[in-house]
Amino acid sequence: MIENSQKSSALVSSFQRAQDAVPSRAVVQGLDFLSDLLGKADIQINGSRPWDIRIHDLRTVQRVLAHGSLGLGESYMNGWWDCDRLDEFFTRVLREKLDEKVARSALVWQSLRARFVNLQSGRRAYEVGEVHYDLGNDFFASMLDRRLTYTCGYWNRATDLDEAQVAKLDMVCRKLGLKPGMRLLDIGCGWGSLMKYAAQTYGVTCVGLTISREQAAFGNDNASAVGLPIEFRLADYRAFNVDGKEKFDCVASIGMFEHVGSKNYDAYFSVARRSLKDDGLFLLHTIGKNQRRGGVDPWINKYIFPNGELPDLGAISDASQREFIIEDVHNFGADYDRTLMAWHARFEHAWPKFTDRYGPRFYRMWRYYLLACAGTFRARATQLWQIVLSPSGVENGYRRVS
Amino acid sequence: MIENSQKSSALVSSFQRAQDAVPSRAVVQGLDFLSDLLGKADIQINGSRPWDIRIHDLRTVQRVLAHGSLGLGESYMNGWWDCDRLDEFFTRVLREKLDEKVARSALVWQSLRARFVNLQSGRRAYEVGEVHYDLGNDFFASMLDRRLTYTCGYWNRATDLDEAQVAKLDMVCRKLGLKPGMRLLDIGCGWGSLMKYAAQTYGVTCVGLTISREQAAFGNDNASAVGLPIEFRLADYRAFNVDGKEKFDCVASIGMFEHVGSKNYDAYFSVARRSLKDDGLFLLHTIGKNQRRGGVDPWINKYIFPNGELPDLGAISDASQREFIIEDVHNFGADYDRTLMAWHARFEHAWPKFTDRYGPRFYRMWRYYLLACAGTFRARATQLWQIVLSPSGVENGYRRVS
Repeated sequence: MIENSQKSSALVSSFQRAQDAVPSRAVVQGLDFLSDLLGKADIQINGSRPWDIRIHDLRTVQRVLAHGSLGLGESYMNGWWDCDRLDEFFTRVLREKLDEKVARSALVWQSLRARFVNLQSGRRAYEVGEVHYDLGNDFFASMLDRRLTYTCGYWNRATDLDEAQVAKLDMVCRKLGLKPGMRLLDIGCGWGSLMKYAAQTYGVTCVGLTISREQAAFGNDNASAVGLPIEFRLADYRAFNVDGKEKFDCVASIGMFEHVGSKNYDAYFSVARRSLKDDGLFLLHTIGKNQRRGGVDPWINKYIFPNGELPDLGAISDASQREFIIEDVHNFGADYDRTLMAWHARFEHAWPKFTDRYGPRFYRMWRYYLLACAGTFRARATQLWQIVLSPSGVENGYRRVS
Repeated sequence: MIENSQKSSALVSSFQRAQDAVPSRAVVQGLDFLSDLLGKADIQINGSRPWDIRIHDLRTVQRVLAHGSLGLGESYMNGWWDCDRLDEFFTRVLREKLDEKVARSALVWQSLRARFVNLQSGRRAYEVGEVHYDLGNDFFASMLDRRLTYTCGYWNRATDLDEAQVAKLDMVCRKLGLKPGMRLLDIGCGWGSLMKYAAQTYGVTCVGLTISREQAAFGNDNASAVGLPIEFRLADYRAFNVDGKEKFDCVASIGMFEHVGSKNYDAYFSVARRSLKDDGLFLLHTIGKNQRRGGVDPWINKYIFPNGELPDLGAISDASQREFIIEDVHNFGADYDRTLMAWHARFEHAWPKFTDRYGPRFYRMWRYYLLACAGTFRARATQLWQIVLSPSGVENGYRRVS
């Protein structure tokens, strides 16, 4: 540790000058550790490149070492550190798998860590309160495309967000083989962008499930205004069509599986199956993780998506195989990077309108969310899958489209 | 059972007339059971439609009930029963999941089954000897396409077997993004059809691994004759490139994973990874099964592919995720039906040339193999996956082709 301390003496000195205080030995040790770790990903503390981080408050060190990802995010929300390109910071961290390296080296710095935790005890561990996630439709409208599609776009041939979302919606319709007169069920329909597009462009009738009153009210008003044959139903998917008497030609579920949780996967696939004709198709669009092990990111869980859970491909195969055959798996996770960066640009642009309503801490939280997620997709640490499933296998085979 | 016996009395009578013997009560009960079971799939015993079966020898009943799939196949090889369209027979059996229904009703007829097994004890259980699987190259040449590609073709736009195999080979090359000067490793290269096509059409240099001396000798002679930069190596994949010093731009493995076995999956993916550049792609082409549970078909295992094992998608995800990210999963299992039917047609056409060498029992075995497998793919009970994998995720995403 002496050697490390010497290595980082310049770094520590800069904090002393800036903050006019002598950092404790524990903080110096922690700074050494973080500095070494980030160095593996070519990230410097108080460096000047866009992906370097500038630490304004040394409490960041304690927080990160004691609470990992949660501490990193909360420190950022507190304004304790900054980074011009958070997306690039996270890309580098995840490409180098620093998160795993922290876990592996845990034993080495266990005592160090314990001391930080002890140092922290007796203080208030978390200053932040829960930030409520039920934001206004106008906020999302300012960030999303004009159809309000809050899921990954398809950028293969698209040049902007609106095109990418239309390309995604159209690809979903083509993968499902929608034809006029068909009935489509959308499990987790959001503001109804898929239903509206499918009804307008492919002449289908749609039923969408949502558990948000706001989305259902907005959607039904909006839909009736343009006279489309689409219907929002306020219902938990598990309670839908319990007797299986309602049969659809196709089922889609776009960006909803992430909220289902592995304990409910069987129930989820059962709803899709019992609502689908025997020769129908089910399109599941979900974010996924690379490894079976590994849970939710605690910061994302606390501040952005409570109770979310990402599946790996094996979990989807296991959970679906009682009811379905997997006809196609399309991975376009890298497109979520571009989608999130487009949302971020629109969010930054629109922020002046919302600063009074949400305040500066929300701003940092939301920016961190969008850019950190962009980084995970750019590093390919998370994936986006569109999976087409059929109850018994399409006769003569399913011909995939892209 | 009395009710059942009455129902099938006409059927039993037909056997009495034909064979001039009174079937035992156990055989009558077994016939009832089989008749009821097959009836669920609209298959009649001694019916006249192409997918109905004609039982010539009542020992078929004992064999099937005592040994399931193995007994069914061996009875067929013995000439004890016939069917004009074995492929359609198997399609119906598997679509109705009769194989699973037998398992579920096992308790009901356990006593019946036990009696058959007892009846059989003391006799010679299997008349057949092991049929050696090392057949001549000329036999395969008469059955396969002109490039000797012994794996599933791609029939999306193809109209005959040669086109389907070229379409498959070309799709593999395009999925891998082959460019002149690249080096391709083919794990389990067979007679080298992929290497030859890739070298000729995409200007790449190839190394292929095979454990068959005959294939390696044939391939090297043939390759040197046309002066292609391809090399056959006689090597078990596990012993290849142990130090990882040899790096390829791409790795392909077409129809070899079925022989690997789940205990070796880790070793298999390790070979692919250590032989691949960090920004390379690995294409895995394999037959798969729908369910994690369920083993190999015992007849196929005994007579066609000893020690084979089909993965499900979850098993591939589990085994590959330590080394790779899955970029794409293309399921064209229904195309194996057409491939097998094309092989069958060529086999039947060429058979007169081989009848003296292999004999009539081999003929029935081979025909049964091709048509039973065609049926499993037509019923979508097995799948064919082409899976593209990358070590760390392709930057900016992988764009799939079909």
